[in-house]
Amino acid sequence: MIRKYDSQRMYRLILKIYEAYGFSTSDSEKIAHILIYTDMHGIESHGVQRMSMYDKFIQNGKIKINSSPEIIKETSVSAAVDAHFGIGQLNGIYSMNLAIKKAKEHGVGIVTTKRSGHYGIAGFYANMAAKQDMLGISSTNSRPGMVPTNSTQPFLGTNPIGFAMPAHPHNFILDFATTTVPQGKIEVYRKLEKNLPEFWVAKDGINPIHDHNDKKDLDLLRVPKSNVGLTPLGGISELTGGHKGFGLGIIVEIFTSILSQGDTSSENDGSNPAIGPCQSFISIDPAIFGSKQAIINRFSDYLQEIRELPAVPGRTIYVHGDKEQLRYIDAKKNGIPVDDATISEIKLIATRLGVPFKEYLL
Amino acid sequence: MIRKYDSQRMYRLILKIYEAYGFSTSDSEKIAHILIYTDMHGIESHGVQRMSMYDKFIQNGKIKINSSPEIIKETSVSAAVDAHFGIGQLNGIYSMNLAIKKAKEHGVGIVTTKRSGHYGIAGFYANMAAKQDMLGISSTNSRPGMVPTNSTQPFLGTNPIGFAMPAHPHNFILDFATTTVPQGKIEVYRKLEKNLPEFWVAKDGINPIHDHNDKKDLDLLRVPKSNVGLTPLGGISELTGGHKGFGLGIIVEIFTSILSQGDTSSENDGSNPAIGPCQSFISIDPAIFGSKQAIINRFSDYLQEIRELPAVPGRTIYVHGDKEQLRYIDAKKNGIPVDDATISEIKLIATRLGVPFKEYLL
Repeated sequence: MIRKYDSQRMYRLILKIYEAYGFSTSDSEKIAHILIYTDMHGIESHGVQRMSMYDKFIQNGKIKINSSPEIIKETSVSAAVDAHFGIGQLNGIYSMNLAIKKAKEHGVGIVTTKRSGHYGIAGFYANMAAKQDMLGISSTNSRPGMVPTNSTQPFLGTNPIGFAMPAHPHNFILDFATTTVPQGKIEVYRKLEKNLPEFWVAKDGINPIHDHNDKKDLDLLRVPKSNVGLTPLGGISELTGGHKGFGLGIIVEIFTSILSQGDTSSENDGSNPAIGPCQSFISIDPAIFGSKQAIINRFSDYLQEIRELPAVPGRTIYVHGDKEQLRYIDAKKNGIPVDDATISEIKLIATRLGVPFKEYLL
Repeated sequence: MIRKYDSQRMYRLILKIYEAYGFSTSDSEKIAHILIYTDMHGIESHGVQRMSMYDKFIQNGKIKINSSPEIIKETSVSAAVDAHFGIGQLNGIYSMNLAIKKAKEHGVGIVTTKRSGHYGIAGFYANMAAKQDMLGISSTNSRPGMVPTNSTQPFLGTNPIGFAMPAHPHNFILDFATTTVPQGKIEVYRKLEKNLPEFWVAKDGINPIHDHNDKKDLDLLRVPKSNVGLTPLGGISELTGGHKGFGLGIIVEIFTSILSQGDTSSENDGSNPAIGPCQSFISIDPAIFGSKQAIINRFSDYLQEIRELPAVPGRTIYVHGDKEQLRYIDAKKNGIPVDDATISEIKLIATRLGVPFKEYLL
């Protein structure tokens, strides 16, 4: 069952848990902020639901609590960072702040980060730049998931891209996997016992799997070198543009593993603790092209024009970030929805760490 | 009928035609080079086939022969250019060379260009950077073509993105419309009297048009504010990721019209000669992150790994740029394929300009 929880109380509980792991108060605040931000914007798959996965990684040493990111090469507009397997959220904040600082000083900042961790939603980091009136882009590679066009085997990650541009009344934020759907979407449909309505999962490179009960095949989704994987954005066929999603996946790989000289998604099969995801963080100051406020105002008007186009009867035209903003307003008022299974996991973690969860959760 | 023509002879004919229009020899060489390059790489829709469209624009003054691009704002890593309606190919070469120069000096170069013209294939400009061992990106906005998710009316352009990264044995070049297919693909299917096999064209935002004989509806494709348009990459539904292609179209609009402070695709309905497309040109030097040769070598190995993955029986796994390279090798040996209708158009132009086409075409 899904219940709603006050976001402030949940935030303080997460903060206490991360302090109990051994993170500083300031670092714990950052981690808790990202997790709650994510749930408040309606992306439940990447919010507090992920705490049990991070807990496992902290326990088995894949996430190193006392690691700090290190700049290994730097120019006025760029940096290559080795994250030394610190927690992804802190690496992400550090690296995007570095990109923003360079963009403020020199117009553009590009930071690539290797040996990082799962960093949550790419859009959060992109929006860090947009909140400072900068254009922001972030992407991460992941683990083998996407089947390249005409292949039978997953090789690229779901490789999401977050893109944010300042706008009124709220920023434009596009955050999308370069597969048709992310892994989490398949898990949600299986939990809900709903069949997969579209060609999201490919078997042998060409056959769709629709049956949510097809445990044998669907369990292969995260198995390296299996014959089951996610279709690229655009689908499995070149007739629907599948080669474009496949190409976008390679672009993300270039900006993450290739430029950072870290591990590719294909190398990150989960068996080797010395292999971790790579990320990229880009910030561009619109002021290098003209009046920043004029550019942002015109872009805001442009988005409003889109919202006001003739709509399919009964539907609403949303631009990217609108739905998340509606969810945020609702979450502030009514709390964030969390399922009981996740609450149980959080209670277990809190109990083990000696954090009195009853002070924060009813 | 389609016949093959020697690329060198065709190049010299085009050169003479553009000289006859009044372009300098050096500029005519650049234009002829791009047109022939495009046909040699198998993208016939954007090669010599486009000469009659450019001819019309030169005659009606939409393309201004004596215009030169002007830098209106500049930093060490960026420039905003006003192209003053010069021919798109020359604006493109100028602007990408400017981005490459800045990337060589400072690591990154971003140039936005407004009031430009139709510049052919985005991948050509991206590859200008890759040929100099730089990462290259170029995009252009166009005219209303793509229907935003949940709308009934085309608003964004097909807004293609060209992306190139140096690699062995040839560069990675991804060049794609952010719609499922570009406008030209619909025209080709109609000419060949083939039905549209997938949901490429949307009527009223939700109904596919498959019948190539549906002249009434398909003729509305380029009519501003009509109820017929192209689907975004990912299709018409959010279930297949259509909102992602829609978002990519907005990103292209940001990098072209919004940052350059030029005209959006939605403003470019063809009725106003003082409105023209906008483009962006980005170059990044991989050396700012590490050893350039090590990065390029590893990327080449990565692409080769993809090519050698298990393939669907009877199919070949191509990475982006492979098919175009095969076409280029064939065109060098056997000539470029051009249909008779296009040859007739070129002969008419040559005759009008007093260019003796018989010296170049048999």
